[in-house]
Amino acid sequence: MIGLSSYAGVMESLMNSAEEQQPSSPLANSWSKIQESSKNQKPKCVGGFVLVHAGAGYHSESKAKEYKHVCKRACQRAVDRLKAGALAVEAVAAALVELEDSPFTNAGMGSNLNLSGEIECDASIMDGKSLHYGAVGAISGIKNPVLVANRLLSEAQKGKLSAGRIPPCFLVGRGAHDWAVSHGIPPCPSEKMASKFSLSAYKRNKRKMELAEKIDTGHNHTKKRRQSSENENGSGCLDTVGAVVIDLEGNVAAAVSSGGLAMKHPGRVGQAAHYGCGCWAENACSMNSHSTAVSTSGCGEHLIRTMLARECSAAMQSEDAHQALLEAMQNKFISSPFLAGEDRVLGGVIVLRCCRCVEPPPSQNIQGILVEFLWSHTTESMCVGYMSAQDSRAKTHISRLPPGTIPGQCLAIEGEKSSLCKP
Amino acid sequence: MIGLSSYAGVMESLMNSAEEQQPSSPLANSWSKIQESSKNQKPKCVGGFVLVHAGAGYHSESKAKEYKHVCKRACQRAVDRLKAGALAVEAVAAALVELEDSPFTNAGMGSNLNLSGEIECDASIMDGKSLHYGAVGAISGIKNPVLVANRLLSEAQKGKLSAGRIPPCFLVGRGAHDWAVSHGIPPCPSEKMASKFSLSAYKRNKRKMELAEKIDTGHNHTKKRRQSSENENGSGCLDTVGAVVIDLEGNVAAAVSSGGLAMKHPGRVGQAAHYGCGCWAENACSMNSHSTAVSTSGCGEHLIRTMLARECSAAMQSEDAHQALLEAMQNKFISSPFLAGEDRVLGGVIVLRCCRCVEPPPSQNIQGILVEFLWSHTTESMCVGYMSAQDSRAKTHISRLPPGTIPGQCLAIEGEKSSLCKP
Repeated sequence: MIGLSSYAGVMESLMNSAEEQQPSSPLANSWSKIQESSKNQKPKCVGGFVLVHAGAGYHSESKAKEYKHVCKRACQRAVDRLKAGALAVEAVAAALVELEDSPFTNAGMGSNLNLSGEIECDASIMDGKSLHYGAVGAISGIKNPVLVANRLLSEAQKGKLSAGRIPPCFLVGRGAHDWAVSHGIPPCPSEKMASKFSLSAYKRNKRKMELAEKIDTGHNHTKKRRQSSENENGSGCLDTVGAVVIDLEGNVAAAVSSGGLAMKHPGRVGQAAHYGCGCWAENACSMNSHSTAVSTSGCGEHLIRTMLARECSAAMQSEDAHQALLEAMQNKFISSPFLAGEDRVLGGVIVLRCCRCVEPPPSQNIQGILVEFLWSHTTESMCVGYMSAQDSRAKTHISRLPPGTIPGQCLAIEGEKSSLCKP
Repeated sequence: MIGLSSYAGVMESLMNSAEEQQPSSPLANSWSKIQESSKNQKPKCVGGFVLVHAGAGYHSESKAKEYKHVCKRACQRAVDRLKAGALAVEAVAAALVELEDSPFTNAGMGSNLNLSGEIECDASIMDGKSLHYGAVGAISGIKNPVLVANRLLSEAQKGKLSAGRIPPCFLVGRGAHDWAVSHGIPPCPSEKMASKFSLSAYKRNKRKMELAEKIDTGHNHTKKRRQSSENENGSGCLDTVGAVVIDLEGNVAAAVSSGGLAMKHPGRVGQAAHYGCGCWAENACSMNSHSTAVSTSGCGEHLIRTMLARECSAAMQSEDAHQALLEAMQNKFISSPFLAGEDRVLGGVIVLRCCRCVEPPPSQNIQGILVEFLWSHTTESMCVGYMSAQDSRAKTHISRLPPGTIPGQCLAIEGEKSSLCKP
């Protein structure tokens, strides 16, 4: 694990256009450049903004096209909802449904299979306006787990149940499935949830696991479980999905959905269902000058124990968003005392923050919203897409660690700013 | 909900002896008195300390004796382990087993039944030394859920599984049960888990629920679910259990276990399984001058959304432990923006903090450990017990809100200090 003094392997780059990638460059320069360019542009009138991710992990060039496509569609879905006047929390759920429906992502349809060959999904959603939260863990037979999380959130907002019972914010397993069905969310046969990719990955992983355990047993029986440290999950199987949204009124929302680690134990719940770990959204208030929204991806256990979503959200109250995220990823994740025993700390985040402010040109004195959005990851790559309500189509990008750097010990960080104002 | 300016209803009392209760008195005076008395006493040589709770809720006088008894036995179990040289995390698990085994507490044996008449338990444990954490949610058919959480914690400390798989820290439902059994924890038939108290409470609650829904349906069909705000759960059913421990080496650990709210939806997971919400433990380090351990009880959804265990732990780094806990309970719980819509915020915490320091008399220059332990609750009452390794038996106490104050809007806070040193 690298210390604070060894930032040499850290890639810090910023893009003016996500699809026209610029070479890596020292952050301060690029960031200033963006600031300059935004100062010279008249604020555009848009009705909201969405940033999505299709996971921090490893995205091969052959898969890149599909990942970019699904990110584009997810952005479009959220923007369609925003244009129709939806709140951030509805738009973020719409983006997630698109991401879950793709057989290429590890969420909803096409999720990783667990040790028993079953699909069990985690998802959560948080509304920065009400600060309500809904989550499901290890849920099977539901095509869009995020819709169950969203329904839990909206039901909890209605107040107490009969006889004064407090509505749940987190349901797991069979109980979560039954609650969803009783609230009108249709069940989906398990065999339809698996994709040809997730099925073939399961068979491959199963063979490798059996081989690894056979070799271990043969060589040294007592160290059986610990000897094989080859990362068969790789970072290729961490492609959880998520999104962060700001709506026309300046409300933020965040969501995340995951099929979990391949070959996980049945019943294992990862960060995607964990409050403060998978996603976080908080509107600006008397205590916080910025509204913030965060969604994470990567190794669930690392993201849980570092509570990464909430830590990044708290960091975003600092003046310099990029510096704050860089320090949070370094100090609260890679070098976190909570992960002292881990040689590779794998994860990624997308972050959005905004404050209502008077934007230049000062003579026009337009009440605008300055949106800053960033992503950072310690995995080999991370696929993101983003779009404002004024854009004709989403921009997508696969961010990669610089060649030669070690995943889990180094990080990449990129971002942009956008100045929005009400139509 | 009361604001910061209306502390009139807040009870602030400290006790010199938990079994000889003193009348309520302004905190600053009582706290100083304890400080004075500890200054005049030679530090005693003991091998550790335990503080347990049998829940924040409502403890009738008739039940009080049983609750105190189980707290005493739990303290004794932890101290026995500490005297035998066990680490804090082992001692805290031993205390929890005793608390879970009581048919009077809402944890393990005798847990509340859910809507389907089944028992589903939550439990978690955290080791302040390794910062590892283990949790189970909605687990059935296991007598001591805390032992599964503890086993998850210790298995995760051993490193990766075969083929590089990351071990889980959080398991739920059937998967959690099967993992436990495959790791040598015996299953317990569900019918043996229910007590005559939990069964009769279920029948009573079921009748009341049916009646409430019948009345609602008759009066106004559309508002069916929201109209009956009578709190049938009351605060009588919140008696989750927990413990915090410091061992001979100054390591801290915390644990919590709960059967959850009575008549909860199957699959509902409360704060007891939620990282940062049910318990927290962190040894002192370069960043934190104090070791802290916290365990919570009360309404799970309120404790999750405020992340109360971690908030109280963070507050305990302040100079004045009592003032810090008072402010945390007021600002981060009762008046938390995360619970803005709630009229009654129900919960309680036990907190332990310690720092290695040179104790008076200065001439002797003894390297000692100053332990401060407190409890605070917004529920009608909270039952606690505590014991140091030098004590012949535990002290127990049922803390109550002052008569006339409103549960969920006011709080009680009490505590003591103890100066320990290595034998």
